[in-house]
Amino acid sequence: MAQSFEQLLELVNKQIAGLPAFQRAPLRLYEPAVYTMALGGKRIRPVLALMASQLFGGSAQATLGPAIGLEVFHNFTLLHDDVMDHADMRRGQPTVHAKWDTNTAILTGDAMFAVAVRLMIGAPAGSLRAVMQAFEALAVGVCEGQQYDMNFETQADVSMAEYMEMIRLKTAVLIAGALQIGALAAGAPAGSVAHLHAFGTQIGLAFQLQDDLLDLYGDEAKFGKKIGSDIRENKKTYLYLKALELLPAEDAAALKTAFATPTQPDKEAEKVAFVKSLYDRIGVKRHVEAAIQAMFKEGEAHLNAIPQSEIVPEAMEILKQFTARLLMREY
Amino acid sequence: MAQSFEQLLELVNKQIAGLPAFQRAPLRLYEPAVYTMALGGKRIRPVLALMASQLFGGSAQATLGPAIGLEVFHNFTLLHDDVMDHADMRRGQPTVHAKWDTNTAILTGDAMFAVAVRLMIGAPAGSLRAVMQAFEALAVGVCEGQQYDMNFETQADVSMAEYMEMIRLKTAVLIAGALQIGALAAGAPAGSVAHLHAFGTQIGLAFQLQDDLLDLYGDEAKFGKKIGSDIRENKKTYLYLKALELLPAEDAAALKTAFATPTQPDKEAEKVAFVKSLYDRIGVKRHVEAAIQAMFKEGEAHLNAIPQSEIVPEAMEILKQFTARLLMREY
Repeated sequence: MAQSFEQLLELVNKQIAGLPAFQRAPLRLYEPAVYTMALGGKRIRPVLALMASQLFGGSAQATLGPAIGLEVFHNFTLLHDDVMDHADMRRGQPTVHAKWDTNTAILTGDAMFAVAVRLMIGAPAGSLRAVMQAFEALAVGVCEGQQYDMNFETQADVSMAEYMEMIRLKTAVLIAGALQIGALAAGAPAGSVAHLHAFGTQIGLAFQLQDDLLDLYGDEAKFGKKIGSDIRENKKTYLYLKALELLPAEDAAALKTAFATPTQPDKEAEKVAFVKSLYDRIGVKRHVEAAIQAMFKEGEAHLNAIPQSEIVPEAMEILKQFTARLLMREY
Repeated sequence: MAQSFEQLLELVNKQIAGLPAFQRAPLRLYEPAVYTMALGGKRIRPVLALMASQLFGGSAQATLGPAIGLEVFHNFTLLHDDVMDHADMRRGQPTVHAKWDTNTAILTGDAMFAVAVRLMIGAPAGSLRAVMQAFEALAVGVCEGQQYDMNFETQADVSMAEYMEMIRLKTAVLIAGALQIGALAAGAPAGSVAHLHAFGTQIGLAFQLQDDLLDLYGDEAKFGKKIGSDIRENKKTYLYLKALELLPAEDAAALKTAFATPTQPDKEAEKVAFVKSLYDRIGVKRHVEAAIQAMFKEGEAHLNAIPQSEIVPEAMEILKQFTARLLMREY
């Protein structure tokens, strides 16, 4: 009865390919939306929403609108983030503001947000208010997270707690919200929705830590981004903050100095190698992997706290396997 | 029983002043939202929503969330429009991207959109889906209208029909949507909601034509913008298109030529005076005023088609007086 990851992904991709909201005039507004949605991405959020829904016996059909809405919303945030971060490439392709212009990225993004609202309204009648509330809460959270992320660029000292709160808002609330919305659409009991949300928060945090890790230790071809970009851009990631914590004072000071000055284009490789040597000195990779494992464990405890009587066991297996695989990705 | 314009405006302003959604961290995200909302504006949209609600016996309390949501949404569009149009002043004060920066205007705008969704969810249970549908439809429409507006900047020939469709989307759908949402929140019958929406469309179109008119013929101090800005920016407004229709071929060609070249800073006053002389030659002011009157009449017919048995007569008088006064503004 429960659908596999592959089946759900196919359902999501089919739905996205034919989305009527973007098949209309003005072309200049909607063409970049179609372009962005077709660039791919792992469709993690809609798949998680559908998995959460079938966990409680909900039909994919009843959850499909909100699920796709989450993906449209996620892509809207990418459009605007790429403008704010001056990022010209994503998923190996030019971003919307690079391919068209900034105004297009702003306005098409706004239209995608509006379309995401439309898709959210597709939630079943009984859960509409709860789904909409979950959606607006995650939308506000994502904006707050992006603001903290930008603040950190000019903030001399960022604590580990501040960093974790930032990635919770910027990344985890959307992952957690996807699971929450799927469960709500299926009419799951409030206690179990809360457990699933808490599971999603841990998965989301772990997912971001892994992203931080892969930025330096990943496979460039598979990751789709240039290795070491966080170091080149002086981004205060988990790796950086953990190294500051654990390095001897002198090395920590050297790391801080390296991050306090803009990277010279001809010294990029040198800087990445230097910082990596500091990270390696404390074995940062093991520390991040341990943190990811701890989060995964905490998340799983929430998952296991959901009463067996409420769930479809097969769907639980599918969800567990998918999230485990998500956190084992090497690219 | 029905509340006056002044009472409703006070209610709206009080609510906006204490909006809890913007009284939180991160300051950098929410301070510009508070700044924008405090700049004032005529609060036309929330007042119209409340007037529509009380027209059908609805309480202000039940409609206040969506009403304020409309104002927050409207202000979000101003933030992003000002970025896209490179407008540094609004309501006599620096715009958000001028006072802070572009990233702030983008992200605070996004957060305001999300907060608008939150406020919309405050609609009474029975009308929630209908209110949300009206909201997403107007949100999409406003984005499409802004896109057409930007397209027209580089589009050599804009027809009057294209222009009217652009202002319908960019301005009228939000006015019409405000009335529609107020009526829906009060549980008004569908036929009457449709009439009120149609009334709002006419009022919205007329309101934009008046704005076009005031841009050239208004009182600079009261209007809050520099007189003739549409001419300086070569904006193809109703005045321009009407003049092209009615001017002798030679004058029309001269007008087109004037609008086809960027305005030289030292020739601004000269250009405005020249174009104004062409507009005056066909009496464009009378033409616009006649069009406004015709729209007002058509709108009123829709208003009068609403069955007396459904409405609060006093509330109808208040709505009629307010919209009539709105279209008689001279600033």
